[in-house]
Amino acid sequence: MDKILRINVGADGGPEFKTEPLGDYAGLGGRGLTSAIVSKEVPPTCHPLGEDNKLIIAPGLLSGSAAAMSGRISVGCKSPLTGGIKEANAGGQPSQMLGRLGYAAIVLEGKPKAKSLYKVFINKDGVKISEDNSMCMMGNYDVVDKMKAEYGEKIGVISIGPAGEQKLAGASIAFSDMELRPTRHAGRGGVGAVMGSKGIKAIVVDDAGCSVRSPANPDAFKAANKEFVAGLRKHPVSGEGMPAYGTNVLTNVINEAGAYPTKNFQWGQFDGCEKISGETQAETENARGGEGSATHGCHRGCVIRCSGTFYDKDGKYLTKQVEYETVWAHGGNCGIDDLDAIAQLDRLDDDFGLDTIEMGATIAVAMEGGVAEFGDAEAAIKLVKEVGAGTPMGKILGSGAAVAGKVFGVERVPVVKGQAMPAYDPRGIMGIGVTYATTTMGADHTAGYAVGSNIMGTGGKTDPLSPEGQAELSKNLQIATAAIDSTGMCLFIAFPLLDQPETFQALIDVINGFTGASLTADDVTELGKSILKNEREFNAAAGFTKKDDRLPDYFKKEPLGPHNITFQVSDEELDQVHNY
Amino acid sequence: MDKILRINVGADGGPEFKTEPLGDYAGLGGRGLTSAIVSKEVPPTCHPLGEDNKLIIAPGLLSGSAAAMSGRISVGCKSPLTGGIKEANAGGQPSQMLGRLGYAAIVLEGKPKAKSLYKVFINKDGVKISEDNSMCMMGNYDVVDKMKAEYGEKIGVISIGPAGEQKLAGASIAFSDMELRPTRHAGRGGVGAVMGSKGIKAIVVDDAGCSVRSPANPDAFKAANKEFVAGLRKHPVSGEGMPAYGTNVLTNVINEAGAYPTKNFQWGQFDGCEKISGETQAETENARGGEGSATHGCHRGCVIRCSGTFYDKDGKYLTKQVEYETVWAHGGNCGIDDLDAIAQLDRLDDDFGLDTIEMGATIAVAMEGGVAEFGDAEAAIKLVKEVGAGTPMGKILGSGAAVAGKVFGVERVPVVKGQAMPAYDPRGIMGIGVTYATTTMGADHTAGYAVGSNIMGTGGKTDPLSPEGQAELSKNLQIATAAIDSTGMCLFIAFPLLDQPETFQALIDVINGFTGASLTADDVTELGKSILKNEREFNAAAGFTKKDDRLPDYFKKEPLGPHNITFQVSDEELDQVHNY
Repeated sequence: MDKILRINVGADGGPEFKTEPLGDYAGLGGRGLTSAIVSKEVPPTCHPLGEDNKLIIAPGLLSGSAAAMSGRISVGCKSPLTGGIKEANAGGQPSQMLGRLGYAAIVLEGKPKAKSLYKVFINKDGVKISEDNSMCMMGNYDVVDKMKAEYGEKIGVISIGPAGEQKLAGASIAFSDMELRPTRHAGRGGVGAVMGSKGIKAIVVDDAGCSVRSPANPDAFKAANKEFVAGLRKHPVSGEGMPAYGTNVLTNVINEAGAYPTKNFQWGQFDGCEKISGETQAETENARGGEGSATHGCHRGCVIRCSGTFYDKDGKYLTKQVEYETVWAHGGNCGIDDLDAIAQLDRLDDDFGLDTIEMGATIAVAMEGGVAEFGDAEAAIKLVKEVGAGTPMGKILGSGAAVAGKVFGVERVPVVKGQAMPAYDPRGIMGIGVTYATTTMGADHTAGYAVGSNIMGTGGKTDPLSPEGQAELSKNLQIATAAIDSTGMCLFIAFPLLDQPETFQALIDVINGFTGASLTADDVTELGKSILKNEREFNAAAGFTKKDDRLPDYFKKEPLGPHNITFQVSDEELDQVHNY
Repeated sequence: MDKILRINVGADGGPEFKTEPLGDYAGLGGRGLTSAIVSKEVPPTCHPLGEDNKLIIAPGLLSGSAAAMSGRISVGCKSPLTGGIKEANAGGQPSQMLGRLGYAAIVLEGKPKAKSLYKVFINKDGVKISEDNSMCMMGNYDVVDKMKAEYGEKIGVISIGPAGEQKLAGASIAFSDMELRPTRHAGRGGVGAVMGSKGIKAIVVDDAGCSVRSPANPDAFKAANKEFVAGLRKHPVSGEGMPAYGTNVLTNVINEAGAYPTKNFQWGQFDGCEKISGETQAETENARGGEGSATHGCHRGCVIRCSGTFYDKDGKYLTKQVEYETVWAHGGNCGIDDLDAIAQLDRLDDDFGLDTIEMGATIAVAMEGGVAEFGDAEAAIKLVKEVGAGTPMGKILGSGAAVAGKVFGVERVPVVKGQAMPAYDPRGIMGIGVTYATTTMGADHTAGYAVGSNIMGTGGKTDPLSPEGQAELSKNLQIATAAIDSTGMCLFIAFPLLDQPETFQALIDVINGFTGASLTADDVTELGKSILKNEREFNAAAGFTKKDDRLPDYFKKEPLGPHNITFQVSDEELDQVHNY
C-alpha cells in the first residue's frame, strides 16, 4: 500500500490516470492522508465544485491487513456543505480491497471538459477508465447491479447516486458491503457532490489475486490482534449491546437521558421512541425471518458486528439494519415513529446517495417551515423522492439544512459550519455540543464522541448537564479520534479502548507489529494533534474564525425540555479546545 | 423630526407602539441613524429573522425640508442575505412625509406571537395599527390600491409583497412614488424579509396638516439651496445625461467600456445592448405617447429627474422607466435583449417585492445551472412568477444568487458576502471591484461608485483596467457615500459634488443653513468614517474577517473578454481600504 492513483478528469480526451509513490505522504493513511493531501494541494478559498478541489479516497494504515476492525475508509476534500476541510468515513468492503491492491489513496483532480460519466475499474492488472453515460441519474443499487453484471460478484463498488450527479451538498458516496449492496456511506459534508463534479460515477475494485497485507512482525502482530479482539469482546458496549441491537440500542438510552432531539430539536424526549428503538427493531427483524441482528459486520474482519438486515413486511430485503443516527434523523427528529417508513427512507437515501443525518435534519427544518406536518411519514418519503427526481424541492432538500432554513425562512436551524447536528441535543449532552462547535468538520458526533463519557461513563463519567470538564473531554476525544480515523479502525473500538488500558495497548501493539514501528501512546496523541492542526490551518485559510466554532444562538437561549436547560459551555472554554 | 416610533410586534395582543425622543441618537439621520441603532441594539450573532433583529426605517437629516434632492430614505437591519449589517436606500414619497410628520425613525422590533398581518397608519394625529389578513400574499400594486381606497389619495405607502411575507432573502421594501405606485424600493439585502418576519405588511403615512420643516437659518438655507440646484443643473451627468435617458444612459457607456457583465459575468460586452439602451428606451417611451422621460423625479424636490414611465405596446402603464441596474440584471446578464420583457420583469419584481439586481443575477446563475437558456425571456418571466406564487423554484430564486448557486451546483456565482454584484464587471472596472469587496454591505455599487472616476472621469480619471489608485479611490468614495446616505440626499448629486467644489460647498451650506450647525468638509468626512466604523465593528462581531472582503476566486483567475483581463487589486490593498 505504497502508491497513489491520481485520476485527472480534466484531460482533453476524458480522465487520465497515473500511479505514483507516496513520497512525502509516506506513513500516512486514512484521515491523516486525506487531510494532508487537501491541506497541501487544495487552495483553501477554491470553489468546492471547481477545478482546484480534489477528492481523496484513502484506506486506513491497517486496511487490507488481518487486523480486526480495520476496514474503514476516509474520503477527503474541501466540503461543498461547510466550505471547510472534510473527512467523511465509511465502512464496507472497498477499504480492505484497495489496501490489498496496494493503493494508499485514489485522488480525483481537475475538472471535466465535457459532461460525461465515467467508471473506473481497478484490479491487480491495473486501472481502466471508461465512459458510461448509461448510468446517468442511476441509483446506487442499480449501479452496483450493473457493475456486478460487468465485473463479476467479487468486486467492491464506490459510487454516487443522482444526488452526487446533481452536485447537491447533502450527497454521499456509497461503499458496497459484504453482500455487495451500496449501504455504507461516506455521508457527511457533500463528498458525493465533489465526486459528481469530477464526472466519476463509480469506482470498481477487485482484489482477486492479491493477498492480505503481511505484517512486519507476524508473531507480535498476531498476538496483539488476539488480545485486541478479546478486549473488544469483553466490553459491554462492543461485546454485547452493539452486537445485540446495533447502534440503534442508543434510542432508548438517549431518550431516557432527555437529550433525544425531537421535532427539529424542540424537545429532548420523543413519545414514539419505543416503537423505533433498537430493541423493537431487533425484534421486528427476527420476527420477519431474516438472520436478525447480532451476526453481521459491515466489512470483513469486523468482530463487533453491529450491523444487520432490515426486511419489509413481506420478508423481502429492504435495507441494512437502520443505524441509530438515521432512525433518529428520519424518525424522532421528524416526529415519525414508523420503523418501516424510516427503513424506506434509509433505502431511498442509500439509493440516491444522500447523507441520512443531513436529510433527516433538513426535512425537520422544512417541516418547521410548513412544508409538511411533523409525524407525516408519507410526506417525508415523498420529499426524499423529490431529491432523486431532481425537482426544485428536491434540490433544496438535497442541499442540506442550512440552505433549507434560508429558503423556507426558518429560524431554528441546527447546524454548525453549515452541517446539520446529529442525534444528540447539545443542551442535554453538553460534551457533544463542544465537539459540534469546535471540530473542523461542522457538527459531527464522530469527531469526538463525548456521549460515551457523558451518558455511558466510558473512560470516566462526566455530567451531561454541566459544562464542567466538557471542553477538556472533547479535546482529548477529538485528538484520539483523528488518530483512530487514520488507522482504518472502526471508531467503535473507542469504548473498550477508553475503559481498558490493556486493549488500548493491544491496539498500539497491533500497529507496531504490523508496521515494525515502535509507537507509544504519546506518539498516537501527537499524530492526532498534527492532523487537527493541518485541518484547522486549512479552515483558517478558508476564512473560518472562532466565530465559526459556535452553536447557533438559540441553543444558548431556548431551554430544552424536559431538563429545561440551555447549552452552558462558555465561548472562552470553546476557544481553549484546540489550544495544545 | 425629533422622535422615534418604536413598534413592538411581540406584544401579546399584537403590535404595540410608543414614541420616544431621539436621545443618544440626536443629530443622526438616514444611514447614520439606522446603522447606529443596529450597532447598539441588535446582537450581531442573532438570527436575521428572529426576535432580536430590528428593522429601522429612517428619513435623512434633510428629508421633509425644502432642500432639493432630500427625499431618500434608509432601511437598516441585520441582513438575511449577507448576515451582516445592512442599509438599503430608496426614493419615493414616504421619506419627505415622515420628515414632516416629525419621525426620525420607525423601528420594528420583537417577534410576533401569532401569524397575522398588520398595517400601520401614521398621520398628524398619531399612529394606528390594525390587523388585516386580507392582504396575505398580496402584491404591492394591490396593497397600494387598497390603502388608497382606505386612506385616500394623499398618502405614501411602505409595503412588502409576497416575497417579504415568505421571508425570502431577496425581498425588498416598496416605497410609493409621486403617482402613488410601489416603484421605488429599498432593494438590497433582504430587508423585505425582515419586515415580513415582523408581520407588518404596510406602513401608510399621511402628512396632511404638517408643514415643510423650517430651516434654522432660512436666508442662508435658501441661498445655499439655490446655488446647490444650479450646480446640479450645470453638470453634464445630473443636468443632461440622466434627465434625458435616465440611469439607463449607462448601458451603452459600460458596454462600450467592455465591463458590461453578460450572461452571468461570462463576457464584458453584450450583442443586444443597442436594443435595451437608455437611448432606445427613451425613444420607445416617447413613441408610445407617454410623457416620456426628462420630466420626472421619484420624489418631490428632485431636480435631476432621472425617472420616467414605461408604457406597454398598447400605451398602457406597465412600470416606471426601468433603471440601468434592472435593465442589465434582467437583460444583458441573462442574455435578454427585449425591452418589453425586461419591463415586465421589473413590474413583477416591484409587485412581488423583490430586489431586481439580486433577481436578475440569480436567474443568470440558474441559467448557467441549466434551469433555462440564456436569452429566453419567456422563461425568465415564468421563473419570477414562481417567486410570487411561492413554489419551491420560486423560493430558491427568491433566496438570491448564493443560494441558487448552491442548490443548482453552479461554480461561478458573482457574490460578495452573499450579495449579488450589480451591473459592472469588477475586472473591467477595477475600482468598483474594490467597493464590492470591501464595503460592509456585500457587493454594492452605491456604497462607493468608483465607476464615475474609472469610466466618466468624475472627480479625476483613473484607469479602469489598472489596479493603481483604486483602493484609495474606493475608500474616499465609501466615506463620502456613508455621509451622503445620512442626509437623505440622492446619491446622484455626487457627480457635480466631485467635479464642482462650489457645489460641494453649497451642499454643506444647505446642511448648515438647515441645522444651524457649522460643519466643514472635514466634519462630513469624519461622519462618514464613524458610520463605516460602526458598521465594520458590527460585521466583525457577527464573524466577518478580511477573508470576507474578497471577490470570488474566479474573478482573479478567469480573464474577462474583450479586454482579457482579471481583477488585479491585491488582497493587501483591499485590506488597507478601511485603514483610517
